[in-house]
Amino acid sequence: MLRPKFGAIHMTTSSQHSDISADWIAVDWGTSNLRAWAMGAEGVLAFAESDAGMGKLARDQFEPALLRLVEQWLSDVVTPIVACGMVGARQGWQEAPYRAVPCAPVASGDLVRVQTQDPRLQVMIAPGLSQLSPPDVMRGEETQIAGALALMPNFDGVFCLPGTHSKWAHVSAGEVVSFQTFMTGELFALLSGQSVLRHGMAEGGWDEVAFDAGVSEGMARPEKISARLFTLRAEGLLAGLSSASARARLSGLLIGIELAAAKPYWLGQQVSLIGSEALCANYARALAAQGLTATQLDATACTLSGLATARGVWKKARP
Amino acid sequence: MLRPKFGAIHMTTSSQHSDISADWIAVDWGTSNLRAWAMGAEGVLAFAESDAGMGKLARDQFEPALLRLVEQWLSDVVTPIVACGMVGARQGWQEAPYRAVPCAPVASGDLVRVQTQDPRLQVMIAPGLSQLSPPDVMRGEETQIAGALALMPNFDGVFCLPGTHSKWAHVSAGEVVSFQTFMTGELFALLSGQSVLRHGMAEGGWDEVAFDAGVSEGMARPEKISARLFTLRAEGLLAGLSSASARARLSGLLIGIELAAAKPYWLGQQVSLIGSEALCANYARALAAQGLTATQLDATACTLSGLATARGVWKKARP
Repeated sequence: MLRPKFGAIHMTTSSQHSDISADWIAVDWGTSNLRAWAMGAEGVLAFAESDAGMGKLARDQFEPALLRLVEQWLSDVVTPIVACGMVGARQGWQEAPYRAVPCAPVASGDLVRVQTQDPRLQVMIAPGLSQLSPPDVMRGEETQIAGALALMPNFDGVFCLPGTHSKWAHVSAGEVVSFQTFMTGELFALLSGQSVLRHGMAEGGWDEVAFDAGVSEGMARPEKISARLFTLRAEGLLAGLSSASARARLSGLLIGIELAAAKPYWLGQQVSLIGSEALCANYARALAAQGLTATQLDATACTLSGLATARGVWKKARP
Repeated sequence: MLRPKFGAIHMTTSSQHSDISADWIAVDWGTSNLRAWAMGAEGVLAFAESDAGMGKLARDQFEPALLRLVEQWLSDVVTPIVACGMVGARQGWQEAPYRAVPCAPVASGDLVRVQTQDPRLQVMIAPGLSQLSPPDVMRGEETQIAGALALMPNFDGVFCLPGTHSKWAHVSAGEVVSFQTFMTGELFALLSGQSVLRHGMAEGGWDEVAFDAGVSEGMARPEKISARLFTLRAEGLLAGLSSASARARLSGLLIGIELAAAKPYWLGQQVSLIGSEALCANYARALAAQGLTATQLDATACTLSGLATARGVWKKARP
């Protein structure tokens, strides 16, 4: 199997020189990307990322991929590295078995230690969460939820994490009580990029009125989704529907049916969105149309806060 | 742009020699494939197909692609060729503008003549149908409907044409009154082949109990579809859901939400399915679970019957 060389490493450092020595390193290792932060007493010292996602790596390629990114930050002593995300999947570096809800998003003693060749590394992976009924799983989002709870310690309510696989999680007394995943982001990517609808959306663009109409349509008649989709193509052919309007209405339709199905999660609840600014803004707008004001938290801030929580939990368990 | 050579031509003839001379040639020219039948007084004399679909051809490549397939059947006199499908789209060989419903599926004087270099060819394209509200289009299915009506002259009811873009058409007094398209087949292909769900379906297989459960779930709670999809992945990870069960339940879910949205079409109606045997069997099974017995018509028989109808209409209009 041909494997890419992961040439695309991007770095930003807060000093002019590469003489940074990290107290510990925070790692968000997803299917497509690897992101690492050198952490010091004052917080982030430097950041680096590459496209060496879990999905592209064989088991013995994880350590070299990580070293390539973080070796510059290592010193003579052992550096703790806390990672979350798909790196802990069965096909990842080392499986970190799911923890079943209800439970705290990150808990003492449940981080999985990975054996490394390089003695300077002490790598720990935070496990994901599972739910038996209805069956569901998450990997990475539990760390963001832990981070959000560290930033808002007394939060009781619902987190919505929009993305490829959007998650809704009910959190109470510091525990994830239940959660549900929606394939909204992946459906949008497949439909706008690879289905017959792509012909009418190739020019990109955005149209807020069309987005709102899509949300409203998706919310009101979610059972019609499979018919509504092709309408976007037909309107492009018959009525000159613009690329911007078609894209925005598709997004609105898919978020609308997500909100319709997730209603038991958000109705009458305190909702906090965790994700990229643009995506959270769309969800906040869609929720506002249902009369709900959602707060927004930055995804990276939550990830870093959650990895710090995981590290604290680890230190406490193994003094 | 690199274009394939369309090497994969398959032929079947009813004679041992290639000395067939066609009275006329029936052509079904879709996005992905080109199929042609040499027609004589007794019906089909020979069949040939290639992968020279509309989607792979520039405008000046249509005639060579057609000649490559049918030249063996031409004689010294002009041979009429009647084509249907995406060949008549704006991006096709020559646009055959949509005819707006309500109207007969194929009508006199509306076939579009294509100018060819080769004087032995007299090519006509059957136009598709359009509907303004809700916006919808079809190309190719109108010919199958015309063919089905020729096979069942007094049919009043609903045709369901399952496929990449499934169509439901209400037909009365020989006219298509209204129709609606569902992206069911394309959604199944994208989700089972390219989404995260593919991991749990890679081994193929089929499970009728899981299909029935999917139909029932999709029909009963269509608004939950976006959440139900990821459940297939989670059940694979947590409960060992088999590839066969996951594939069949996905198919059932998508057909279930189609049936839920298409209910105004089939409820209390006479329904006739037009399509491949396997796909029609799935739809018939799903409809039977709703207490409805649907008849089934072979798609190719309908296409040929419809192209013959179109040819008859053309001859009558231009004696």
